[in-house]
Amino acid sequence: MLIEKSVREFVELLSSKEPVPGGGGAAALVGAIGVALGSMVGNLTVGKEKYKDVEAEIIKILESAKSLQAELLDLVDEDAKVFGKVAGVYKMPKNTEEEKAKRNEAMEQALKEACRVPIKIMELSYEAIKLHRKLADIGNRLAISDVGVGVLCLKAALLSGRMNVIINLNGIKDEGFVRSTRDVMERICGEALTIADDVYAKVKEILGD
Amino acid sequence: MLIEKSVREFVELLSSKEPVPGGGGAAALVGAIGVALGSMVGNLTVGKEKYKDVEAEIIKILESAKSLQAELLDLVDEDAKVFGKVAGVYKMPKNTEEEKAKRNEAMEQALKEACRVPIKIMELSYEAIKLHRKLADIGNRLAISDVGVGVLCLKAALLSGRMNVIINLNGIKDEGFVRSTRDVMERICGEALTIADDVYAKVKEILGD
Repeated sequence: MLIEKSVREFVELLSSKEPVPGGGGAAALVGAIGVALGSMVGNLTVGKEKYKDVEAEIIKILESAKSLQAELLDLVDEDAKVFGKVAGVYKMPKNTEEEKAKRNEAMEQALKEACRVPIKIMELSYEAIKLHRKLADIGNRLAISDVGVGVLCLKAALLSGRMNVIINLNGIKDEGFVRSTRDVMERICGEALTIADDVYAKVKEILGD
Repeated sequence: MLIEKSVREFVELLSSKEPVPGGGGAAALVGAIGVALGSMVGNLTVGKEKYKDVEAEIIKILESAKSLQAELLDLVDEDAKVFGKVAGVYKMPKNTEEEKAKRNEAMEQALKEACRVPIKIMELSYEAIKLHRKLADIGNRLAISDVGVGVLCLKAALLSGRMNVIINLNGIKDEGFVRSTRDVMERICGEALTIADDVYAKVKEILGD
């Protein structure tokens, strides 16, 4: 599994021409890093006398963040798996009309599956951005810059997810699938980016930047 | 060393209340991921007949990117080291006027040193963003979305670096140091963000997004 490699090895493998990890896996990892920073802020808030009034809410945030983090980490390897399927289709023969038709059908299916991972990255990043909105309000003020870094990572993960959805959609012929996937993507981006930019602006204001 | 831990362990440690890694180390890692994607695009370009006219330039980009990646990875652990020094100063006694003065002086020095790492993250991310500008022009078009993801990660690393500079500067009394560090930071941000946004817009245009 890619996430069992050391950080150094992972980054070195990413930089190589090996097929995985690629941009999709990088997006999932950057999202996991973002949500982990939110958890860190939560963990630096619970158990503090000053923040006892919000403790129950922080514990809920921590539970959600833990699950989002695990899902995003899983997507690093899931992205590699679906990318492997697309790469497999590229190797299929295309000498006869029958082979071409079979290959096109297999490509359509593999690309649809390959869209699923970055859409999921976008959905999970959006959920994590909403947690950061709460953390910017009620989390430990001494760790406010970490809320800011977290939300910056999540925004990068979200837009990177979008870039990977687009490149897969560009190869898909099923217009209905393309339209409905675009609709989901636009809805998530519209809502998530507004919140992410608000959280970032709020953190900057608190820091006096 | 933090970068010798597995990706999963690193993210889990980041999410905990352990002092390191924190936002600074996360910024350095996200920058390393960004520049690694640039290298990947370069590695998918060299040796291809279609791109033989730009091969010499791509090889230069790959050399620069390799060194930026190594420096950014080193900064993950360097950030932990300087953070450790700040944490050490917090534990110094402050019972007498003399102890207070000694502690304040030590804090001033530790915070100045703690500024150095995120400023370096910003400088290296800026250099890597400039490499992505070239890659968007001459790199393998099949990997254009990875140029986009790379530059998104680098922008997040740059702004995360800024956030960490600011939080350290907020504790520093030396007005000359604060002013000159702010000047460096503003110059890097002004130049780097314009290029990053241009590269991102260009990739989106190529992808038809």
